[in-house]
Amino acid sequence: MTERLDDRTSVRLKDLGEFGLIARLTRGLPGRADVVLPAGDDAALLDLGGGADALLAATCDAQVEGRHFMRGVATPEEIGWKALAVNLSDIAAMGAEPLWALVSLLLPAEESVAELDGVYAGMRALALRYGVAIVGGNIAGTSGPLTIDITLLGRVARARALRRAGGRPGDALLVTGALGAAAAGVLLATGATSNGAARVGIAADLAERAHDAMAAPEPRVAEGRALAASGVVTAMLDVSDGFAADLGHLCTASGVGALVEEAELPIAPAAAAVAPIYGRAPRDLALYGGEDYELLLSVRPEGVHAAVEAVRSVGGTARVVGRLTADVGRIESEAPSGERRRIEPRGWDHLRYAGT
Amino acid sequence: MTERLDDRTSVRLKDLGEFGLIARLTRGLPGRADVVLPAGDDAALLDLGGGADALLAATCDAQVEGRHFMRGVATPEEIGWKALAVNLSDIAAMGAEPLWALVSLLLPAEESVAELDGVYAGMRALALRYGVAIVGGNIAGTSGPLTIDITLLGRVARARALRRAGGRPGDALLVTGALGAAAAGVLLATGATSNGAARVGIAADLAERAHDAMAAPEPRVAEGRALAASGVVTAMLDVSDGFAADLGHLCTASGVGALVEEAELPIAPAAAAVAPIYGRAPRDLALYGGEDYELLLSVRPEGVHAAVEAVRSVGGTARVVGRLTADVGRIESEAPSGERRRIEPRGWDHLRYAGT
Repeated sequence: MTERLDDRTSVRLKDLGEFGLIARLTRGLPGRADVVLPAGDDAALLDLGGGADALLAATCDAQVEGRHFMRGVATPEEIGWKALAVNLSDIAAMGAEPLWALVSLLLPAEESVAELDGVYAGMRALALRYGVAIVGGNIAGTSGPLTIDITLLGRVARARALRRAGGRPGDALLVTGALGAAAAGVLLATGATSNGAARVGIAADLAERAHDAMAAPEPRVAEGRALAASGVVTAMLDVSDGFAADLGHLCTASGVGALVEEAELPIAPAAAAVAPIYGRAPRDLALYGGEDYELLLSVRPEGVHAAVEAVRSVGGTARVVGRLTADVGRIESEAPSGERRRIEPRGWDHLRYAGT
Repeated sequence: MTERLDDRTSVRLKDLGEFGLIARLTRGLPGRADVVLPAGDDAALLDLGGGADALLAATCDAQVEGRHFMRGVATPEEIGWKALAVNLSDIAAMGAEPLWALVSLLLPAEESVAELDGVYAGMRALALRYGVAIVGGNIAGTSGPLTIDITLLGRVARARALRRAGGRPGDALLVTGALGAAAAGVLLATGATSNGAARVGIAADLAERAHDAMAAPEPRVAEGRALAASGVVTAMLDVSDGFAADLGHLCTASGVGALVEEAELPIAPAAAAVAPIYGRAPRDLALYGGEDYELLLSVRPEGVHAAVEAVRSVGGTARVVGRLTADVGRIESEAPSGERRRIEPRGWDHLRYAGT
């Protein structure tokens, strides 16, 4: 036992990282036959039984002050909006319809009621938009920062549910919307603190779009449902860790590789404008920035038109950015010149980030 | 708008209390027709549709270091156990079968992996006992205390689901197990800090039972399901805030009053032994101590035997402690002498407690 204890205590949290810690902690936990898809995807898929065709989709995500938001940067309304939006994005990634939320608040003693009113106003606006009922809640005091932890439940027809696994070599790789704007917002918010002059030269509307992408993202709920209904999508997830990291997740789960056509990456105008000011390539913001809350998906080759039209039918956009390959685990980008380079599937890791 | 803002900012968190804040924040939130029972009971009841007979029961509860547990007092295993147990107790109170949990961890940077291993070992032990699968999770860093926030989902047949409403005048009032042991554990843990001598004279096994009741409560899952199946229970909830406060909740929801036979209150031996040392009446620990995680229920008069037998059939105990009355909102206790006194439906309020 002593040896075992020494072995255990010698492992440090930051060495494990978020995914390593989850893998370690969930070892040996009991399973159930009605868990259709366990933890590890954007949401779990659960079968309530009784012969119903619908599966329950369940996900949870927390927003912690100082880690996921800063009060000086985001308004209370934006903080509440985003807390629900990141969960809606996970439900969207399964092709599911969001239904019910449980909201757990951790409140510092000095928390202002007016700010909480604002947080709930933001949450309410998004709940109304998607018809989500808040059916449970918990409020606890904390000596730590304001934290909003939401569990979101949704519904999806068994045959339509999308997951990270299922992509096949030859499938087209598509992404909705544009990438990098949230990262541009982070750069502007961070840069404004250390170097106020940096923002000079950014058009006001682009700065605002970068801020909005960071502080109040639009989850692709309608797009996700339309894509699930199209029947041509083979795998899907949302871009939260970053395009490269999330493509890595899709490839790992599907047992494939990917080739990204660099010229086709939809780089957000805000990212293109902001990146150079901070000495970054717009491409890097799009690939590694994270928190885009777009959908990344693979589509059967003959289904590309149907997928693009499905997204368009609900007012969104989607484009082909590459394809899946049989080169398991290899993720590359190809420049218009034909030159290829490896894309590291790195991105946002909440624990490692916190340690830096 | 200025007037409104002034009005809002003048309200302080501790004046609202937990229940007042919840009422304020949830105003104007959208509902859904498939929400069979909204927030406000021990768990929400939700209809996934498709004609299934089963309803989904959903609840969430957080355990915050320094508020709900202290590391020097509870072991990591106990902390994990209790985090799941308090949620199991809420699902039990609906008469539901627990199925799936989502576990959200907030980790301080210096958190030790060995302690987390212990927390998960405790959670795993209880999950195995009740066949609960952990189907989702989230890990986030925090500058605050270790927090374990769990959403637990269960299933209950539509016709069998129990709630706080439904009790009628004349119904018998029953409680499972015994009351006050957890409060005795809190007294011992607190007293040990300020006055180590206080514990002298408490039998070791009673001190241990008080500690266990506080740090690793046994949720009445089997009892709850057996009671729901008995068909004689009219209302039920778990004793978390305290017998008096939770009886108040049952009476409010059911629109009734209650008369408690003081001599029938099942005071835990640990409470009887510990209370006098701290100058408390054992009765007060049983009425107001809270965190007992027993079930409190009303039963049709002719169904008392069936309810008691249902609990006994799964190895538990339940006894009649009084009855519901038509005296709406009045909760009284009656001594063997016939003397009656008012019971204030007060108990544990997480926000107010935090402020004292």
